[in-house]
Amino acid sequence: MTQQRRVSVVLFEGFELLDVFGPVELLSGAPDLFAIEYLAPQAGPVRSSQGIEVLAPAGYDDAAQADIILIPGGPGTRVLVGQDRFLRWLADFGGSAQIVTSVCTGAAVLAAAGLLDGYRATSNKRAFRWVMTQGSEVEWVPEARWVEDRNRWTSSGVAAGMDMTAALIRRLSGSEVATALAAAAELDLHDDPAWDPFARLHGLV
Amino acid sequence: MTQQRRVSVVLFEGFELLDVFGPVELLSGAPDLFAIEYLAPQAGPVRSSQGIEVLAPAGYDDAAQADIILIPGGPGTRVLVGQDRFLRWLADFGGSAQIVTSVCTGAAVLAAAGLLDGYRATSNKRAFRWVMTQGSEVEWVPEARWVEDRNRWTSSGVAAGMDMTAALIRRLSGSEVATALAAAAELDLHDDPAWDPFARLHGLV
Repeated sequence: MTQQRRVSVVLFEGFELLDVFGPVELLSGAPDLFAIEYLAPQAGPVRSSQGIEVLAPAGYDDAAQADIILIPGGPGTRVLVGQDRFLRWLADFGGSAQIVTSVCTGAAVLAAAGLLDGYRATSNKRAFRWVMTQGSEVEWVPEARWVEDRNRWTSSGVAAGMDMTAALIRRLSGSEVATALAAAAELDLHDDPAWDPFARLHGLV
Repeated sequence: MTQQRRVSVVLFEGFELLDVFGPVELLSGAPDLFAIEYLAPQAGPVRSSQGIEVLAPAGYDDAAQADIILIPGGPGTRVLVGQDRFLRWLADFGGSAQIVTSVCTGAAVLAAAGLLDGYRATSNKRAFRWVMTQGSEVEWVPEARWVEDRNRWTSSGVAAGMDMTAALIRRLSGSEVATALAAAAELDLHDDPAWDPFARLHGLV
């Protein structure tokens, strides 16, 4: 019997749209495998960095146990890394999940919550130097489309979240499923985690 | 002086998330060039095909004159092509825009509204045979990442919308702007409109 995993997407004021809806596009193509839940500070509207609001059905305090959590990036992460109450909640919530993932500067938030201590991780390349300041116990990898280290998966900026998500689906459900989901979205995947021209573009290698 | 263009995104029940938020991710990176407006049947929540709702600030009847309109695809297009009142509104609204674009099965809706009559156009490859039934006066192009014909731009499925949008930005604002916006999203563009492995996958060529 197929196991359905609960994927909890942590939204916040100023989250980046594509960081969320790229991965969601892939995951939602297999509803038998992945049930997606959205969390925001409170149930109700939460504003993206692009201005448009989405309606979160649940607040952080209502969160059920997650199998996979996904933290997007966006300008809002600059605020989150200083919010102790949020970071304590995230440390608990993420610490009890089977798999913890981030896209873009979401890695800064995971790092600030201590969830990447002792792990290899990557993040958005334009913001990389700032992200590194959020986790001195993290082994930051500057040149990577995404990094998988045990149950922590962190991707580079924005569009890289889709490649990481496809790789995660491949790991959990096999390459046939991952390939079919990408094809349904007519998405041309990068399946080499070392592919990263953006590290060079931003002088990180 | 730089001209700012109003991009009106037409949302509807059952729109595909990435069809909208892929292009929006690129366009919103240049707010001096593109002002994005979202329209739905009425102002308020509108449900995506993935379930999550977004809050549209305006209804179709409130729409201001658009420079560019964007119609996403998604399961909701199957309903829209039969809604005469909506199609009449779209024919007027799109007919007065400078540029009319669609992503994925959004082309079926444009075709049903008559907005592609006499034009070359493409659409999602898995749904292509259905889409073609919506416009007998359209010159459907089965193998194309996107098609530009005068002021009509139509893309293939889902992720192809990002490549088309980057090409449109290139046409309107130059390749330097388009390249910078794609790099900011760490997006690896296909810039050849003839690149389309999905046509073959679905037996269209």
